[in-house]
Amino acid sequence: MKTLKTKVAIIGSGPAGLILGQLLHNQGIDNVVIDNKSQDYILGRIRAGVLEQSTVDIIRELGISERMEREGLVHNGFTMIWGDDYQRQRIPFTELTGGKVMMVYGQTELTKDLLAARNACDALSFYDAEDVTPHDFYSESPRVSFTHQGEAYQLECDYIAGCDGFHGVSRQSVPEQEMTVYENAYPFGWLGVLADVPPVSDEVVYQHHQDGYVLCSMRSSTRSRYYLQVSLDEKLEDWSVDRFWTELKRRLPDDLAEKVVTGPALEMSIAPLRSFVCEPIRFGNLFLLGDAAHIVPPTGAKGLNLAASDAKQLSDGLLQFYNQGHSEGLDQYSSKALERIWKAERFSWWMTSLFHKLDDSAFRQKMQLSEIHYLAHSKAGQTTIAENFVGLD
Amino acid sequence: MKTLKTKVAIIGSGPAGLILGQLLHNQGIDNVVIDNKSQDYILGRIRAGVLEQSTVDIIRELGISERMEREGLVHNGFTMIWGDDYQRQRIPFTELTGGKVMMVYGQTELTKDLLAARNACDALSFYDAEDVTPHDFYSESPRVSFTHQGEAYQLECDYIAGCDGFHGVSRQSVPEQEMTVYENAYPFGWLGVLADVPPVSDEVVYQHHQDGYVLCSMRSSTRSRYYLQVSLDEKLEDWSVDRFWTELKRRLPDDLAEKVVTGPALEMSIAPLRSFVCEPIRFGNLFLLGDAAHIVPPTGAKGLNLAASDAKQLSDGLLQFYNQGHSEGLDQYSSKALERIWKAERFSWWMTSLFHKLDDSAFRQKMQLSEIHYLAHSKAGQTTIAENFVGLD
Repeated sequence: MKTLKTKVAIIGSGPAGLILGQLLHNQGIDNVVIDNKSQDYILGRIRAGVLEQSTVDIIRELGISERMEREGLVHNGFTMIWGDDYQRQRIPFTELTGGKVMMVYGQTELTKDLLAARNACDALSFYDAEDVTPHDFYSESPRVSFTHQGEAYQLECDYIAGCDGFHGVSRQSVPEQEMTVYENAYPFGWLGVLADVPPVSDEVVYQHHQDGYVLCSMRSSTRSRYYLQVSLDEKLEDWSVDRFWTELKRRLPDDLAEKVVTGPALEMSIAPLRSFVCEPIRFGNLFLLGDAAHIVPPTGAKGLNLAASDAKQLSDGLLQFYNQGHSEGLDQYSSKALERIWKAERFSWWMTSLFHKLDDSAFRQKMQLSEIHYLAHSKAGQTTIAENFVGLD
Repeated sequence: MKTLKTKVAIIGSGPAGLILGQLLHNQGIDNVVIDNKSQDYILGRIRAGVLEQSTVDIIRELGISERMEREGLVHNGFTMIWGDDYQRQRIPFTELTGGKVMMVYGQTELTKDLLAARNACDALSFYDAEDVTPHDFYSESPRVSFTHQGEAYQLECDYIAGCDGFHGVSRQSVPEQEMTVYENAYPFGWLGVLADVPPVSDEVVYQHHQDGYVLCSMRSSTRSRYYLQVSLDEKLEDWSVDRFWTELKRRLPDDLAEKVVTGPALEMSIAPLRSFVCEPIRFGNLFLLGDAAHIVPPTGAKGLNLAASDAKQLSDGLLQFYNQGHSEGLDQYSSKALERIWKAERFSWWMTSLFHKLDDSAFRQKMQLSEIHYLAHSKAGQTTIAENFVGLD
């Protein structure tokens, strides 16, 4: 068995883990990343694609923003469509928030940039690790055990950062009685298609449709990401990409349907929607970040941004500890992060409840349409959407 | 059988019927009010107590605002309280809406003023009428039949205004297939106490409490109106007024609980909460107004104000018809009133969903508290509450 030592053991190398690792590395704080997947697998995942200003700022701080600045699309608004008569209203979120923008840049691309930076530096990383397990995090001597290429490792550390997602081992290592779990399942999913076709609109479109929500999004000016709300019992094998394009065009208003460029799917999947928060998100010397701590439904595009904010906040706390010798930032990590997390959970739940076909209650549907109509026609209403969308301070 | 003729037959003499009758009478449009209750019964009902600016303007237009101006309390804000730590935030709705105010003046008092005006003029009214029935409203010759003091009447008219509330005969006379009904029942009720004690606060207080919503309101500086959310299976006979005061003080934060002045109840009741809208609200020459057409839960204080707006709008349409000879206003009554009605239904449903204990979902309760917290700390959020509360244009 090999024994290694580091300051911070980072389990998982999605955006939370890689951002944290790079923020620490750039400040000279030794850290090791362990992931049970391969880099190829990680790069193959299709995930979110809209970055808030605060996330963009972190990427810039990391010094890896060059490709994002070149290829990312700066957005200043999105359009809502609703009702039998396809009413529509643009939400000019930049104008309504004193200049805040959103950056369209795929999580896959961001991960590529983060991995390249990690690989280019001398920080230690283990991919395809097996049996990754955090130990003794309620003690002063936490460690992570794992096997890599047939060799058993013990990684001794000061702190463990659990960045290994909802299904990861980090949160599952915490005794159940130590946390309160808040959860909501939604009775529908998103059928998504990624395709190398120009998007139907320069800006994102959110549509309330009586047969289910439609999201027209993009990863670049030549790559589109479309979603259709489907029932949870819908099976992917029943959907050809042709059937997807037909249903998308059927739900969209005519002028947009005409503009849809169809093509083969680079990826096609059905994702369930879930809200999840555990409290607290620090357990002794184990910190949870990103999806390991909380899940939002994708409406509102908060998941990746929350992961980045968690990483930034924990990094600030760790820097304070190692450079200034006090633990105030670490002690406040859980409560401060949760304040931000609950705001994003609220907005994501609310956007989901506002735009999706919920049940067969005609009254409830009237409430949705009345609320969208009100928000669309009130400057204060538009501003509440805008300021949440770009990220509350 | 006696046959009478009028232009507008008004069934019901709550605020909708009395305001409509007086608006028409003041402009020389002959109308007859028929109610199956006595004036004493009508004056004994304890109902709403907060008037929007637009309702105040109607009362002024009717020339019966003298007592309201003297006794009514002008309000410029209310306070929200929420959470285990009793966070609180005032919503300065006048400041946030460019000067719009609310007037606290009991519906009982307003009805007294309206009945006095009706009794003082030469317009015909029938109280304690029996077997009131609208007929032939899809024809050019509608009529209302009823019995009064043993005598049978036929009231021939151009139009019938159904102002006889949710349980009244007007809406029930319309064939079911002619209307779409939207409805929502809430799994809780309001236990209310009216008492001649000074209110706990100069302004209205809305409190989210884990055991159920609390509303501290008033009818005057010496008469308080308090409500507690209770389960629908709660029985009034299980509640003494002492038990009410104890529970009210238990839910309120200490500083407010200490200020509660207790006393005997002038009225104590449990009211269920309901949302209801029928579409359309015109059927041939029968128009529905107020609770005959729509019910809102009382959170948000919209019921009386909607009734007044319906009466004003129908009166404008009738004046246009009789004075200018065209029916545009009448033809648009249903669609225009419903636009306003759905906005108020949305706000009332939303305020109800935000402040009441809804179910045992810990996630849902976190969403409520997060939403209240967000709204309280965002100027845009506060403004959305304020502009709906004072009444959207």
